[in-house]
Amino acid sequence: MDAISVIRAKRDGGRLTDAQIDWIIDAYTRGEVAHEQMSALAMAIYLNGMDRAEIARWTAAMIASGERMDFSSLPRVTTDKHSTGGVGDKITLPLAPLVAACGAAVPQLSGRGLGHTGGTLDKLESIPGWRAALSNDEMLGVLADVGSVICAAGDGLAPADKKLYALRDVTGTVESIPLIASSIMSKKIAEGTGSLVLDVKVGSGAFMKDIEAARELASTMVGLGTDHGVRTVALLTDMSTPLGLTAGNALEVREAVEVLAGGGPADVVELTVALAREMLTAAGLPDADPARALADGSAMDHWRRMILAQGGDPDAELPVAREQHVVNASVDGVLTTLDAYAVGVAAWRLGAGRARRDDPVQAGAGVELHAKPGDRITAGQPLLTLHTDTPEKFGYALEALNGGVLIAPADTRFEPQPVVLDRIG
Amino acid sequence: MDAISVIRAKRDGGRLTDAQIDWIIDAYTRGEVAHEQMSALAMAIYLNGMDRAEIARWTAAMIASGERMDFSSLPRVTTDKHSTGGVGDKITLPLAPLVAACGAAVPQLSGRGLGHTGGTLDKLESIPGWRAALSNDEMLGVLADVGSVICAAGDGLAPADKKLYALRDVTGTVESIPLIASSIMSKKIAEGTGSLVLDVKVGSGAFMKDIEAARELASTMVGLGTDHGVRTVALLTDMSTPLGLTAGNALEVREAVEVLAGGGPADVVELTVALAREMLTAAGLPDADPARALADGSAMDHWRRMILAQGGDPDAELPVAREQHVVNASVDGVLTTLDAYAVGVAAWRLGAGRARRDDPVQAGAGVELHAKPGDRITAGQPLLTLHTDTPEKFGYALEALNGGVLIAPADTRFEPQPVVLDRIG
Repeated sequence: MDAISVIRAKRDGGRLTDAQIDWIIDAYTRGEVAHEQMSALAMAIYLNGMDRAEIARWTAAMIASGERMDFSSLPRVTTDKHSTGGVGDKITLPLAPLVAACGAAVPQLSGRGLGHTGGTLDKLESIPGWRAALSNDEMLGVLADVGSVICAAGDGLAPADKKLYALRDVTGTVESIPLIASSIMSKKIAEGTGSLVLDVKVGSGAFMKDIEAARELASTMVGLGTDHGVRTVALLTDMSTPLGLTAGNALEVREAVEVLAGGGPADVVELTVALAREMLTAAGLPDADPARALADGSAMDHWRRMILAQGGDPDAELPVAREQHVVNASVDGVLTTLDAYAVGVAAWRLGAGRARRDDPVQAGAGVELHAKPGDRITAGQPLLTLHTDTPEKFGYALEALNGGVLIAPADTRFEPQPVVLDRIG
Repeated sequence: MDAISVIRAKRDGGRLTDAQIDWIIDAYTRGEVAHEQMSALAMAIYLNGMDRAEIARWTAAMIASGERMDFSSLPRVTTDKHSTGGVGDKITLPLAPLVAACGAAVPQLSGRGLGHTGGTLDKLESIPGWRAALSNDEMLGVLADVGSVICAAGDGLAPADKKLYALRDVTGTVESIPLIASSIMSKKIAEGTGSLVLDVKVGSGAFMKDIEAARELASTMVGLGTDHGVRTVALLTDMSTPLGLTAGNALEVREAVEVLAGGGPADVVELTVALAREMLTAAGLPDADPARALADGSAMDHWRRMILAQGGDPDAELPVAREQHVVNASVDGVLTTLDAYAVGVAAWRLGAGRARRDDPVQAGAGVELHAKPGDRITAGQPLLTLHTDTPEKFGYALEALNGGVLIAPADTRFEPQPVVLDRIG
């Protein structure tokens, strides 16, 4: 077996055999196959695809490259959620303690943001004292005590995926359904959850711009989970406009806390409850009532205990950016477009996101929305507030927003997108 | 400008702009673009192609990555030949001194063999004392004194191509017409020759297995040469069976000397003279008579002076392999197939070739043919002699030949392939 023959097989449009896949994933993890060989193979996969059986084997080989966690000692069933990433997507923050409050255990191994989408760990790190890095024992301890934990994935889970993900990031081979599906599912299956709900975003702010590609990704991932004995369901959800009214780290934590307190924007509440219902049903708890757990304070109670258990102070003041700039409407009318990608890039440029893996992020930076698509607008009313510690970036952020905020004459008919577009599983 | 956007443009089937090509070749040469990024781009080019204008710019950028030699101080016009590589292809050895004997100057910068095709420098190094590595001044000296020189290309010519060629070799991105054409032509144009004749091999022992692909490669290269002011012509020549009666280093030198002495196998003489006529015509010397220069000993005289000028002894005994194994015909009939690839792999396994760039080669190893396709065969007559210093390899060589030597009943009609299949330019 050698790398060139495996690359050639895929380059020439063939199927990779099980033996070829097992060998190349293992040899790449051990450093015997060079980065430049794996990137040529990744591009060949990008352009020539992999069939379901190849993707399944590729995923299994990435899982086998590291350890697989085991939560069978917990008294509760485990369930987890994964989002493909969007703008203003703070759902994990209220969702994990909410599902814990309803009786399941939620082991959320999360990542940091890159580019225009934010990362769950970056958001939580705006809470003074909160720690993302836990040992396996600490993680199991929080999970047993609180019922939910959100922390950084250890290096032992699917190391082949970690290496390949970093490689794809610099070689233009990210947006490939076989490679995305196997990357997400190898991590999630290695993480050891008993069931999984996927939130596959669709729209300008998402990885998948059109619903057909999103559906293919979702059904590929549902198939992979099911094949590995993880009950898996996917919701396709709208990402043409940001979720809620904030995009940015501390800004989103504040909004998540509002939801846990029984308030918050309607779309965030709707999606949080919809995903909680799916997770609880997948975990075998279809009668639990997440709406009640939000209303009666039990979700908030779990949130506070979870933050405390990881060194955070749930009562601390959250950081606020040093400078604000308000964007006002210039005309009367109806807001028809508030583009998720434009807002995501603006928040990133203001300092909420990072361009490279090791860049710092600003806790207070981001974009606050004062209106959502469909709202009536009066000239002069505030539409957005930009927050940053580096006001020299306001110009770049406004440039990103250019063309992303559209106000039509007041009699324009506007059809809002539903939050949940489809369900697969 | 960044590598990912260039990779994405080609990945998505677009054209690369001049600025993108200039930037990525320069940045890769300087080490700013990583190997894994260039290999992803090479695979995208392999699968999505480049149009003529892109190939031209890519070639120009590779030439611009290093120095370009200048032979305008020489009193003679320069002309050169490049072969895409075959089995038993020792043509450069008699050709360079022959063309010099006819009045043109031949600056042959050659390479070493890899895989089943031999390399000109490996062959000449079987001559005791002969040196491939010359300084630019030494090279110009031999060229001025003798009229021809065959030596290793310096590191200063098209360094981008050197780096990219080594990368393609390990990433399954070799067999791409845009990448082959730009690689060959960037080196040859940087080498500074005034005119160029390409010998594009077609058949089992060649890079290009079918004539249509060979024609496309040839016409791409002819176009590139012409665009850069180098008068360029291509011959498509047969490589379904080895050239001449030998494949191996010292074995081929011996055959080349026979040709220079006025003898040698008919196909080697025919191709040597045909290529010499093309080179002399391209150099503006259409009346020179290469057949006479072979007959009157002037080509041999130039050969001896060229070998001496590079430290070699033209009268020295050439190395002979320690062991021989004769393969006899098992039936009467007509030899219909003596497959070039099978013979090339056998010679390689016997020690004449190398699998990795730094492997040593055996001077005496190789395959000697006692019959050519079309010849009548009697059971028991010798067909091939295998030569090696490592007789434990005889078995592997015989395995490579299995199925590559076919004898049909004596009344089978056999149509021999012409040596020259087509001419482009």
